[in-house]
Amino acid sequence: MTATQVGASWRRTHNCGELREDHDGAQVTLNGWVQQRRNLGGIYFIDLRDRYGVTQIVLPEDLEAEVKLAREDCIAVTGVVAKREAPNDRMPTGQIELRAATVEKLSTSKTPPFEIEEKLDTAVELRLQYRYLDLRRPDMQRGLMHRSRFIGAMRNAFLKREFAEVETPILTKATPEGARDYLVPSRVHPGEFYALPQSPQIFKQLLMVAGMDRYFQVARCFRDEDLRADRQPEFTQLDMEMSFVEEEDIFAAWEGVLSETFRDSMGAEIPTPFPRLSWREAMERFGSDKPDMRYGMELIDAGPWVPHSGFGVFQSIVEGGGRVMGLCVKGGSEGISRGNIKKLEEVVKTYGAKGMAWWKPGLEGGAAGSIVKFCQGDSGAKLMEVMGAEEGDLCVFVADEEPVCWKALGALRTYVARTLEMIPSVDGADQGGSGPWNFLWVTDFPMFEWDAEPADGGKPRYVSQHHPFTAPDDWELAGDPAKMGSRAYDLVLNGWELGSGSIRIHRQDTQAKVFDLLGLGKEEIEMKFGFLLEALSYGPPPHGGFAIGLDRIVALTLGMESIRDVVAFPKTTAAADLMCHAPSTVDPHQMKDLFIQHADLPRPKEDGSKS
Amino acid sequence: MTATQVGASWRRTHNCGELREDHDGAQVTLNGWVQQRRNLGGIYFIDLRDRYGVTQIVLPEDLEAEVKLAREDCIAVTGVVAKREAPNDRMPTGQIELRAATVEKLSTSKTPPFEIEEKLDTAVELRLQYRYLDLRRPDMQRGLMHRSRFIGAMRNAFLKREFAEVETPILTKATPEGARDYLVPSRVHPGEFYALPQSPQIFKQLLMVAGMDRYFQVARCFRDEDLRADRQPEFTQLDMEMSFVEEEDIFAAWEGVLSETFRDSMGAEIPTPFPRLSWREAMERFGSDKPDMRYGMELIDAGPWVPHSGFGVFQSIVEGGGRVMGLCVKGGSEGISRGNIKKLEEVVKTYGAKGMAWWKPGLEGGAAGSIVKFCQGDSGAKLMEVMGAEEGDLCVFVADEEPVCWKALGALRTYVARTLEMIPSVDGADQGGSGPWNFLWVTDFPMFEWDAEPADGGKPRYVSQHHPFTAPDDWELAGDPAKMGSRAYDLVLNGWELGSGSIRIHRQDTQAKVFDLLGLGKEEIEMKFGFLLEALSYGPPPHGGFAIGLDRIVALTLGMESIRDVVAFPKTTAAADLMCHAPSTVDPHQMKDLFIQHADLPRPKEDGSKS
Repeated sequence: MTATQVGASWRRTHNCGELREDHDGAQVTLNGWVQQRRNLGGIYFIDLRDRYGVTQIVLPEDLEAEVKLAREDCIAVTGVVAKREAPNDRMPTGQIELRAATVEKLSTSKTPPFEIEEKLDTAVELRLQYRYLDLRRPDMQRGLMHRSRFIGAMRNAFLKREFAEVETPILTKATPEGARDYLVPSRVHPGEFYALPQSPQIFKQLLMVAGMDRYFQVARCFRDEDLRADRQPEFTQLDMEMSFVEEEDIFAAWEGVLSETFRDSMGAEIPTPFPRLSWREAMERFGSDKPDMRYGMELIDAGPWVPHSGFGVFQSIVEGGGRVMGLCVKGGSEGISRGNIKKLEEVVKTYGAKGMAWWKPGLEGGAAGSIVKFCQGDSGAKLMEVMGAEEGDLCVFVADEEPVCWKALGALRTYVARTLEMIPSVDGADQGGSGPWNFLWVTDFPMFEWDAEPADGGKPRYVSQHHPFTAPDDWELAGDPAKMGSRAYDLVLNGWELGSGSIRIHRQDTQAKVFDLLGLGKEEIEMKFGFLLEALSYGPPPHGGFAIGLDRIVALTLGMESIRDVVAFPKTTAAADLMCHAPSTVDPHQMKDLFIQHADLPRPKEDGSKS
Repeated sequence: MTATQVGASWRRTHNCGELREDHDGAQVTLNGWVQQRRNLGGIYFIDLRDRYGVTQIVLPEDLEAEVKLAREDCIAVTGVVAKREAPNDRMPTGQIELRAATVEKLSTSKTPPFEIEEKLDTAVELRLQYRYLDLRRPDMQRGLMHRSRFIGAMRNAFLKREFAEVETPILTKATPEGARDYLVPSRVHPGEFYALPQSPQIFKQLLMVAGMDRYFQVARCFRDEDLRADRQPEFTQLDMEMSFVEEEDIFAAWEGVLSETFRDSMGAEIPTPFPRLSWREAMERFGSDKPDMRYGMELIDAGPWVPHSGFGVFQSIVEGGGRVMGLCVKGGSEGISRGNIKKLEEVVKTYGAKGMAWWKPGLEGGAAGSIVKFCQGDSGAKLMEVMGAEEGDLCVFVADEEPVCWKALGALRTYVARTLEMIPSVDGADQGGSGPWNFLWVTDFPMFEWDAEPADGGKPRYVSQHHPFTAPDDWELAGDPAKMGSRAYDLVLNGWELGSGSIRIHRQDTQAKVFDLLGLGKEEIEMKFGFLLEALSYGPPPHGGFAIGLDRIVALTLGMESIRDVVAFPKTTAAADLMCHAPSTVDPHQMKDLFIQHADLPRPKEDGSKS
């Protein structure tokens, strides 16, 4: 291994992506990694790679014999640029090659555990263990660079609009959703803990009370929850808040910021303003509060047909306050086999429906399906009319309480669209960035949800649909909590929830009443939110805000579905860092300094989550 | 309190800083806070304040009687802009006033615990408890906005130079300086802990191994140490790393970034390249590794005089390998009284010197001082020559081991400069930004320091002067560790250390040897750094980097000395958040979920740090 001492001659004059025909004859030095090494008739051809590209190096046999290059060795090559006899038009540097005069090994490499190539199919665990090699892949590097550019462009769009980026604390107080807080024991305050923030929500509201007017932050947030496949215990959000505003101001700010960000970071034009749906309309038409509107197949109210059906089960459900709703899958008669219909039934059952009815409308006795006998003659004609169906389609139905119909059919709509490949593929930043980018505001969410079985084992109670600082659409909070509307809104992109926000409560009396409706006792309110209520007594401005998950939007704009590919050092679904082995045990004296000790450690959990 | 319902007419058309003469006659709505309320002959004059400025509102008595405004009420005012009869040239909006037709109270305020005015002298604890009111002060808001602009400009300077901002984890593994780690117990891995990062050092080096080439990040860092007056448990640094570079590349990148940042965020020109001193020269001339070179009064080697002095004590110290060094305080004979000389003695003793000698050179018997009898005749003339002293000056001397001479006289130099007001005041971003901005690179730090009494109670050993990943100036690490030089460097501004960095070790053998020299056992190395050594076996590039503390540079560029004024929600020196009361106790079930319990809680510490 060579010493690479100060002032040595190994430092690059160019990177591996920039040499072109007009460098012909120039003496240059490149630094990079050995991607490939081939011997053609006594001459060695090396593909030398760095972040900027790949350049072909030509090496006489005697020089190669001297340095003995292996894959992923890190080297410096000095030589003269020459036009290639056989240019490679698929490489930006394909017109030239570098004829090596000297090669210096900057460091050597063992054989890597997997190939350093684009989109290689390697086990996730191995990729995470050797993340520093996984990230050498050009597609991973382009992903991280896109992330940097995308967030940079978004920041500049906010700064241009007179938003100030303000950093809020990471060591903070336990929040209302405390059960999912990461806690940090204090060395200075024995027996006490900080919590890592699930979001900067309260701090940004206090910045509005402080008159900061327009705040944003690229904020790290933490949630100690059981991780689903595509969640991370720490994640990054673009968090913002504005004073003296209503919904329209927030929407306009984000539409401006996002269209600028897409344009500046990837040359994509997205039309504004974004369409809007009320939460109720989204549920009624798509069975989802984050509908993917890039395809149709909307939910259909089959209610008008029920009286014609002579089907007692459906009729009694409707009479009992339930609904009969369905989907019409165009061409589904052939597209979806009998066996697949079983799968559709499984989907709706997962979402709480007791069953699914189906029908393939047919002329001249060709009809089939679980309810075909109720669809004869006029009833069948009426059902075709109600469903907008024709021969060759497949109609499916769920008859249940309204929320169950929505959720089950919404899930079914997504499942069928995937099965029948109705969802357009996305051209991300790497493929020209043309999308499609289907943005949508969903507005007018309910204020509360009834939680019949709280996760903390407590009494059934109302919980906030968004969070307890969301303004109701009536400051007096009159009437039935189950029917109260809120001023919360979500932003949806291609069927993914990007983020959510709301106009906040700036009236102390309203905030106190919401805490009360959520079942918080006086003491609990004082302990957890006393300082917020106090702050609201010093002339708080009307304010509102929004936050989007940056990991998600960065993945989507790359046409990727997993956020793990756009996080440099992600954790597993068991919240472990396989590369540096965190979490880990610590010295007993460290625990003693923090005034904690182990509680009885349990046997490994059933889900095997203990490493 | 008014409801401020959706679509209401209270939303501002302008902010409180933008109305000018040419708005005369316009109907406008302003939103803001009541700064002041005066009654002049039956008419009320209100100063209405928001983040952008202050506008004078004129209110007829009957309208005021109706709404009854109090200080810090948050209001909306609609009316017509009119030219003032008596313009106020000190206010940007001083040419006009707003004649109110309607006033709506958006929210009311209790009497605030202190005035919302610039630079008010309020107890720190009260300011922190009501931080949302403290931050309403215009100077605090300007500070936070300057911070946002400054960091934004710095980011753009890095992005322009093809650096990618990459986010590294906050939930990570305990670091070598583990004793100062904040720990986070894991719910999924019983008995194990994450640590909050003291810096992203290892991750950024792994990004270099990953070929990311140029990385930066505005990174939150954490250090659980006993806080001095101006430290925070969490702080923000601009962290960067580059591959295939030597010191010159890092210096050039930072000089470019900083000059652009100063220009773009505050219109200040700073000359580049920055001057450089080796660590040894900085210590020899200024007694400090972060010298303030805005004034002279350098340390002087009095050694050449000692043989002429006839002073046995000094002579034997020199013979024993020690040194005699001093300062010449110009005009100090009058500027520094006898009483003050006592204080100077206290300063040098704080820094380990056994004593201080002093001398006021004088002609014709006017000389005085503790060593005046050794400074007669030729000896005195020689001493005046050596010290560059003349009548009216004060010379002070420390005779001791070299490091003690340096540190004691370095501290004394700063103390005297403050006492005699030799340090120029700084024009910060708020005052035109002209500085002076005295940047300096300090280079060639020693590799190791001998720690005779490690804080962890362990055996005496070498510790890294910078950190264990710093490259030595000799890859083979030959010779005496006490004399090894490193490739570490610091950046200094006006006598403050802004940050530090180094060329890193990219050779696995060298890294292993450094761990060994630091006294780490094989097992400890494997457990703590096994993954790093493994990474260094896959062709790591030569690399180096740097990080600066953003809280400090933002404070300095505002002409402030306390970082607390440029952190939105700082903690006390006891690491407490007085506003939201963190840290705090948590529910026992939360601790149980994390497999921890209290250890015996101690009695309050002697320093009273327990709240």
